[in-house]
Amino acid sequence: MTGFDVPDPRFERRVRDSFARQGIMTHIGADLTVVEPGRCEIRLGYGEHLSQQHGFFHGGVVSTIADSAGGFAAFTLMPADVGVLTVEYKLNLTAPARGELLIAVGEVVRPGRTLTVTRAEVFAVEDGHRRSCALMQQTMMCITGRPDVVG
Amino acid sequence: MTGFDVPDPRFERRVRDSFARQGIMTHIGADLTVVEPGRCEIRLGYGEHLSQQHGFFHGGVVSTIADSAGGFAAFTLMPADVGVLTVEYKLNLTAPARGELLIAVGEVVRPGRTLTVTRAEVFAVEDGHRRSCALMQQTMMCITGRPDVVG
Amino acid sequence: MTGFDVPDPRFERRVRDSFARQGIMTHIGADLTVVEPGRCEIRLGYGEHLSQQHGFFHGGVVSTIADSAGGFAAFTLMPADVGVLTVEYKLNLTAPARGELLIAVGEVVRPGRTLTVTRAEVFAVEDGHRRSCALMQQTMMCITGRPDVVG
Amino acid sequence: MTGFDVPDPRFERRVRDSFARQGIMTHIGADLTVVEPGRCEIRLGYGEHLSQQHGFFHGGVVSTIADSAGGFAAFTLMPADVGVLTVEYKLNLTAPARGELLIAVGEVVRPGRTLTVTRAEVFAVEDGHRRSCALMQQTMMCITGRPDVVG
Repeated sequence: MTGFDVPDPRFERRVRDSFARQGIMTHIGADLTVVEPGRCEIRLGYGEHLSQQHGFFHGGVVSTIADSAGGFAAFTLMPADVGVLTVEYKLNLTAPARGELLIAVGEVVRPGRTLTVTRAEVFAVEDGHRRSCALMQQTMMCITGRPDVVG
Repeated sequence: MTGFDVPDPRFERRVRDSFARQGIMTHIGADLTVVEPGRCEIRLGYGEHLSQQHGFFHGGVVSTIADSAGGFAAFTLMPADVGVLTVEYKLNLTAPARGELLIAVGEVVRPGRTLTVTRAEVFAVEDGHRRSCALMQQTMMCITGRPDVVG
Repeated sequence: MTGFDVPDPRFERRVRDSFARQGIMTHIGADLTVVEPGRCEIRLGYGEHLSQQHGFFHGGVVSTIADSAGGFAAFTLMPADVGVLTVEYKLNLTAPARGELLIAVGEVVRPGRTLTVTRAEVFAVEDGHRRSCALMQQTMMCITGRPDVVG
Repeated sequence: MTGFDVPDPRFERRVRDSFARQGIMTHIGADLTVVEPGRCEIRLGYGEHLSQQHGFFHGGVVSTIADSAGGFAAFTLMPADVGVLTVEYKLNLTAPARGELLIAVGEVVRPGRTLTVTRAEVFAVEDGHRRSCALMQQTMMCITGRPDVVG
């Protein structure tokens, strides 16, 4: 995950601003903990309002932060004046999302002018122990003329 | 979507109970509006806490109700004493999820003893006009010995 | 699957020419049996060279004609002077592809200027009885300046 | 990709036997070049019968060897007396598959008793230069009572 071309040196500011404007991220209490060229990390502490019927994180919450981690990872490598949209993604839920914390790590696998392919992995941290619980493969689209369109 | 074998005649009660126990569905204000053999519908009114940075529904919210609509559709066709898990899904976001209401319709395409394949479509209703905004294809797994495991 | 805008009235000729130039389609003996606005059908008779180890059609063969049926369906709705590329697809193999014939039906679900979303279903015909064996959801991309880029 | 539990020490023989029985692999001229715990590699030289209309490898060929590489990678970690089926996969075609050789590398990401999640990458080698052209995420299923069911 090195050697990416970074057309906008102020990518971190741009990504953090966009994240801050997503009502849902604030609402559920998610933090954008890492913003690097081609890589983003989002952390989310547990709350009952994020649960399915067994008290684990709901799959929709897992997918929400996976989608955002991958999308913002793609956004780090885009020019300053564009937006980015999720075209599609595929998510495997590989273990119960049980614990006090979720960590989603999104990484660009194949950057492109129009389309960027990313992958994300989500980890559930239970009693301090980190366990992979989801894998995503995603396609993001760069939108010119409409800055800051994520998610 | 007719002619499905329905092993549990009390499927609606079972599905509604499971839905009611999902903290996140209550929290975001989602309603389970249709429960039929092999088919479920979930509705969700707009709120700022569900938004991305342009004030539309966040993609994660779209995926959350799509995943649940497909998962509960699969659950309607399962025996009384089993649970159901999302193995994986693939979601295309096909239009901005803009409007006052989201409607997710999940349908079983291929029921199976262990795995069930479903599809879901999500519609955004803006000023009363309904527009498709997402398409999902999903694999659900029936878990024996662990009743009521959705999401 | 009606009411699509068809910018190129000669779409059938264009699609059939493109199909004819795909070496693999000729090689495996596939036929393009239906070409309608937003819809294509491909048929493929069984041969041992298309098999996996139990004598059924190999999953790769199923995906090949599903991918092409969806791709050409998208291509029917594009202007005369463009090309089309498969961005990605997701395929569920839902039953053994056993029998004397495969039929892949691809349909456009959401046409777009740059990206088009399609779905395909593949049927295996055994002793004259047709059974669904695969479901695909696919994203195609329209490429301007490079006519006839399928697959 | 280390530290996998390998229940069948004769996994390589079992995987190679299964590969040899797939008519299509022989027919297109594919070689199984690496068989390790949780990892397989398949190589395929170019021929006109594998082409799309521009003379590159057809996307269906890329998906066929990606699917098999991932499937056999999963098969290496299964007990001796079971079979394995592709449940579903998602494939991004990220660059033209142009060149004299394709190399598909499949790896297990999350082994499981019933379901195993794998990823594969396909490289096109042109004039000796290797370039990634496809990324796959796949779900495989272990079938007890039916040995050797791949593809």
